[in-house]
Amino acid sequence: MLRTHTCHALNSQHLHQNVILCGWVQNIRDKGTILWIDLRDHYGITQLVAEKDKNSVNVIQAIKTLSRETVIQVKGQVIERASKNKNIPTGDIEVSIESINILNHATLLPFPIHDKQAVSESLRMQYRYLDLRRKTLQDYLRLKHQVIQSVHQFLDQHQFLHLETPHLIKSTPEGARDFLVPARQLEEHFYALPQSPQMLKQLLMVAGFDRYYQIAKCFRDEDLRADRQPEFTQIDCEMAFIEQEDILVLFEQLIKTIFQQTKNITLPKFKRMPYTQAIQQYGTDKPDLRWGMPFFDLKQAIPPNDFPLWKNQTHIKGIIVDDLDGMYTRKKIDQLKGALQKFHPVVGSRLVYIKYKKDNTIVSSINRFFTSAQLQAFLQTIQAKPGHLVCILAGDDQPTQDALAMLRQIVIQNKIDAQSLPLQDFIPVWITDFPLLHWDGDVQKYTAMHHPFTAPQLPEEGWGQLDLYPEKVKAQAYDLVINGVEIGGGSIRIHQKQLQEKILQLLGFTPKTMQQQFGFFLNALQYGAPPHGGIAIGLDRLCATMQGTHTIRDFIPFPKNHQGRDVMMEAPSRLDLV
Amino acid sequence: MLRTHTCHALNSQHLHQNVILCGWVQNIRDKGTILWIDLRDHYGITQLVAEKDKNSVNVIQAIKTLSRETVIQVKGQVIERASKNKNIPTGDIEVSIESINILNHATLLPFPIHDKQAVSESLRMQYRYLDLRRKTLQDYLRLKHQVIQSVHQFLDQHQFLHLETPHLIKSTPEGARDFLVPARQLEEHFYALPQSPQMLKQLLMVAGFDRYYQIAKCFRDEDLRADRQPEFTQIDCEMAFIEQEDILVLFEQLIKTIFQQTKNITLPKFKRMPYTQAIQQYGTDKPDLRWGMPFFDLKQAIPPNDFPLWKNQTHIKGIIVDDLDGMYTRKKIDQLKGALQKFHPVVGSRLVYIKYKKDNTIVSSINRFFTSAQLQAFLQTIQAKPGHLVCILAGDDQPTQDALAMLRQIVIQNKIDAQSLPLQDFIPVWITDFPLLHWDGDVQKYTAMHHPFTAPQLPEEGWGQLDLYPEKVKAQAYDLVINGVEIGGGSIRIHQKQLQEKILQLLGFTPKTMQQQFGFFLNALQYGAPPHGGIAIGLDRLCATMQGTHTIRDFIPFPKNHQGRDVMMEAPSRLDLV
Repeated sequence: MLRTHTCHALNSQHLHQNVILCGWVQNIRDKGTILWIDLRDHYGITQLVAEKDKNSVNVIQAIKTLSRETVIQVKGQVIERASKNKNIPTGDIEVSIESINILNHATLLPFPIHDKQAVSESLRMQYRYLDLRRKTLQDYLRLKHQVIQSVHQFLDQHQFLHLETPHLIKSTPEGARDFLVPARQLEEHFYALPQSPQMLKQLLMVAGFDRYYQIAKCFRDEDLRADRQPEFTQIDCEMAFIEQEDILVLFEQLIKTIFQQTKNITLPKFKRMPYTQAIQQYGTDKPDLRWGMPFFDLKQAIPPNDFPLWKNQTHIKGIIVDDLDGMYTRKKIDQLKGALQKFHPVVGSRLVYIKYKKDNTIVSSINRFFTSAQLQAFLQTIQAKPGHLVCILAGDDQPTQDALAMLRQIVIQNKIDAQSLPLQDFIPVWITDFPLLHWDGDVQKYTAMHHPFTAPQLPEEGWGQLDLYPEKVKAQAYDLVINGVEIGGGSIRIHQKQLQEKILQLLGFTPKTMQQQFGFFLNALQYGAPPHGGIAIGLDRLCATMQGTHTIRDFIPFPKNHQGRDVMMEAPSRLDLV
Repeated sequence: MLRTHTCHALNSQHLHQNVILCGWVQNIRDKGTILWIDLRDHYGITQLVAEKDKNSVNVIQAIKTLSRETVIQVKGQVIERASKNKNIPTGDIEVSIESINILNHATLLPFPIHDKQAVSESLRMQYRYLDLRRKTLQDYLRLKHQVIQSVHQFLDQHQFLHLETPHLIKSTPEGARDFLVPARQLEEHFYALPQSPQMLKQLLMVAGFDRYYQIAKCFRDEDLRADRQPEFTQIDCEMAFIEQEDILVLFEQLIKTIFQQTKNITLPKFKRMPYTQAIQQYGTDKPDLRWGMPFFDLKQAIPPNDFPLWKNQTHIKGIIVDDLDGMYTRKKIDQLKGALQKFHPVVGSRLVYIKYKKDNTIVSSINRFFTSAQLQAFLQTIQAKPGHLVCILAGDDQPTQDALAMLRQIVIQNKIDAQSLPLQDFIPVWITDFPLLHWDGDVQKYTAMHHPFTAPQLPEEGWGQLDLYPEKVKAQAYDLVINGVEIGGGSIRIHQKQLQEKILQLLGFTPKTMQQQFGFFLNALQYGAPPHGGIAIGLDRLCATMQGTHTIRDFIPFPKNHQGRDVMMEAPSRLDLV
C-alpha cells in the first residue's frame, strides 16, 4: 500500500495519527521558517506543513526542490491547524511532514492546472491529460459516472438486459455517413461502424428478448458542430409488447430517477406537446419552456385595415417579451431587427413592436396605422402587461415561425445575460405526433422524419392512407426535450414485413435495393416479430443539460476537435511509420 | 398496455382473474374436443386452453390456423389445471381463452426453436435471431447481464469511475493487427480501432483520476480461433498509487463477488503461483488445477544406469495418472504415445509407463532396465498408489514440458469423458512473476511478455540490470487463470519517462520511431505521472468459464464466424449498392 488515506479523508478525528499520503504538489507557500504544501489527489486536498524548528532539515530542503505537479509520497503526523479552513473537509487539520519520497518529477507544465486561466482550446486539447486535472472536468466526469450507475440500476430493476451489439456491421444508408472499416481478407469489402444499433436491437426483439438496453457507442462521419462528436454514447433501449404510452411513462421515471439520485433534483411532471403545437407556439420541435413566451397569433384579432406590412400576410404572430427595466431601447430593438434580417431578410424587416411601459404609456412602431384604443385592445387580447415589449412578425407560415423562434432565442439569451431567473430550472416535455414523412424538395422524395422503421399512427386497415395522403400520416414517435435540448427520442417500430416494405417503397427503395440493404431485416420480420418500440437517450447531452451547459465535449475524456481530430494522439494519422 | 402479465407470472394466486398475455405459439396440442397452446415469452411459458363445449367456435377455429412461432395476444381467465406440471412456475394453472388476436404471423421456420435439434452452425448463424430464441442462449445472455451488473456495482462501491475512452484512435503497433478506419477528409490518414484502451487508461491516471474502469469493446484483426472474436469485451481497470498486492486482493474479491451474486458459488481462496513454478509443474502458464497431476522430476531420484532413453537427458519428468479402473490398457497407452509423437516426435517416442495395478503388481515398459525394487522405490518417491499409471518423458527442458503438458490435457479429457469429478468445480490461481521480456529467435529481438508498458521488478537503482541481463528481469505482471483459462491479466505500469524509453529501446525502437508512435504518451509521463497499475478481464471468457464452456460465441448476441463474417447481416460487404 502506497498510502494510508486519500487527500480527502483526514479530519480532526485523525489527530496525532501517523499517515502516508500520495498526490500532486498543487502549491507551495514558503514563509521562511514555515512551509506549506497543498497536496492534491482525485478526491481532495490536504495541507502539509514543515517548520524549520520542528521538522528535519532534509524535509525542508526537499520541499524547496519540488516543482508544481510533482508526485510525492509523504509520511507524517496529523496535527491541528492554527488557522482552519471551513471550505474543505480536511480544513481542520494538516500533516506535519516526517519524510518526502518523490514518486515522479514534473517538468514545467504548458499551462497551470486551474479553471481560471485563459488557455487556448487547442492547447488544452493537445494536453488533454493535464486539462482533465481541472476540478470542473473531474466533477463533470464523476457526474457522468453517477448517471451511468443510475441508468444501470434503474433498467436492471425494470427487467432490462444489457445486451451488446456488434461494432463491425453492414453499411446501410441510414441517415448520416458511415465510418467504414476495410476487411483485410476480402478485397473491396467493408464493415461499417454503427450509427446506432437500430436494426440489431429490433432483431433482439425478434429473438425473443423482452427488454434490451445498452450504453452504446455510435459513430457518424459528419461535419461537426459544437454539440456533435464523431463518436458519442447513447442509452439505447428497446421493449417488446409495448405501446407508446408505456414508454413515455417508464422513461419519465428513469430521467426523474437520474436527476434525483445524482443531483438531488426533483423534476416536475413531464409536459406533453404534439409536434404541431410546438411548431405553432415555439417555431421549433425543441422548445425551451423555461422562459414562457409562446407565440400568439394576431391574424384573427386584427380588424381589416391598410397597414401595408400586415395586409395580405397569411400569418401575423408575435411574442411578449419582458422589457427588463426598459432595456429594449429603440436602438436595442433596431439591433434585434438587424439580427433577424440577417437570416430572414423579408420577414425580419417586418418587425413591429409595441412597448407597454411601466407608466402605462404605449410606444410602438405602428402608431400611424392603429389608434391608441386599438393598440390597447391588442395588448389586452394577448394579455400583455406594463413592462412588456410586444414583438410581431408577419409573412408566410414557415419563415415567420423560424424568424420568431430566432427572436425568442435572442431575447432568452438577453434574459440569461441579465441574470433573470427562468420559471423553473428544468422543464422536460415529450414532443409527440410527429409527421411520419417529410417531403424533401431538393431530392424530390420523401424522407423519414424519425427513421424508416417508425410505425405510422394507422391501424392495419388504414395502411391505404400511406398511398393516398402520405404527408398527413403521423408517426408513433416521440422526442424528449429538456430546456430546448433534444435529450432523446424513439418510436414504436414497424413489426410487419408488408408495412415495412411499403414504407421503404415510399422512401424510394426499389425491390432490389430494399433486398440488398435490408433483406436480412425484412426476412426476420416474417418469423414472428413481436410489436416493439424503444428510445435512445444521448448520454453526453443529458449530462451537459443537467449541468446547464451545451458543451458535450466536457463530458468526454478524450473528445475530437471540430475537424474530427484527436490532437493529443494525433489521430487520424498516416501509416507510413517505421 | 398490450398485456397484463408475462408468461412467467401466473400461478394459483391468480385463479379466476381475467388476464391478457402476449407471446409466441411454441406448441399446439389438439385432442379433438380440447386444444392447448404453450405460449412462450422471454420469461416463461403459460398453457392456454380451449374446449369445444366451453370456449367460442371462433377461438377454436383461430387456434387451428396458428402456425408455430406466430405472435398472439390472448384474453382469458386463469383456471386450475387438471394435471399440474411441477416443473414450471405456471404449472398449476392454465388460461381459458376468450379471444385471440394475431399480432404477427410466422412463416415456416428454417429450423425449430429448441436445443435438441441438430442444426448446422452456419444455418444458426444466418438466422441468429431465431437461434437466440433458444432457452440456453437466453440464459447465457442473462448471466452475462448479471455479471455486468455485479461488476458495475462492485467497482462503483470501490470508488472506480466508469470513464469512456475513444474508439477512433491512433494506430500503434501494439501486438495484433489493427482494424483501420480511413479518414474522409484527409487522404491516406487512418484512425485505428483500439486493441485495448491501454495507453488511454494510463493517461487517465496521469490526468489525476484515481480509479478507472470501463466495460470496453476491443478489436483485433486476427485470424480467428474457437475462443477468439474480432471484437470482444473486457472489464478494463486502472488505479493510481497502487501496488501489485493491492490489485490481486481487490480483484480476487471482485471475481468472488461475481460468482457469489450471479451463480451463488463461493470460490475458494485464490492460489498464487509464480510463472516458473507453473511452467515446471504444469508445462503451461494457464494450468487447470482442478485435476491435480503436477509434474514430478525424476532426474535426481534415478541412480546412474544405462537405460538408453534416459541416459544423458537433462530432464526426466512425469505425471501420475488415475488409471480409472484399468482403462489404460497397453493399446490405450500406445494411443497416448501416438498422439504425443504427432506433435513431439522425439520426446513422444520416449514415453515410459509404470502401471501400479490395484493388486499391487507392477507392469512397466522399463522392466528390463530397472529392478522391481528400483521401480517400487520410484513409485514411493513420487507417492504413486495402486490404481495409478505413471507416465514419464525425457528430453530437453522445453519440449519435455510441452509434451507432458499435452499428455496431461489428454488424460484430463479422458477423466472428463469418464465423468470423473474434478477436485473442485473452480480453482482460480494468480500466475505471477512473469519474465519481463521474451527473446524472439525468429526476428532476433526482445518482445514484451505482457506489453511494453509493464514495470520490471527492479528498484530505480537496479535499472542497469536491463542492460546486463534483460532476459532475467521479472515483471510486475499477473494473470488470473481459472480452470486452465486465462480470465484476465494486468501489471504495474512504468510511470517514469526514462524507464519507458529504456524499455522501448530494448524492444527495438529507435528514438525516431519511439517518438512517432509513442511521442504523446512519453511526453505525458514527464508532467507528474503517478505510480499506477491495472488489469483487464475478458468478459465473454469469464462468462463462458463460469458456465463451464469454452464457446465465447454463445455469450455474444451477434458474433462473427471463423472468417470474421457476420453471415446474418452479410458484413463485411461491398459498397456498390444502389
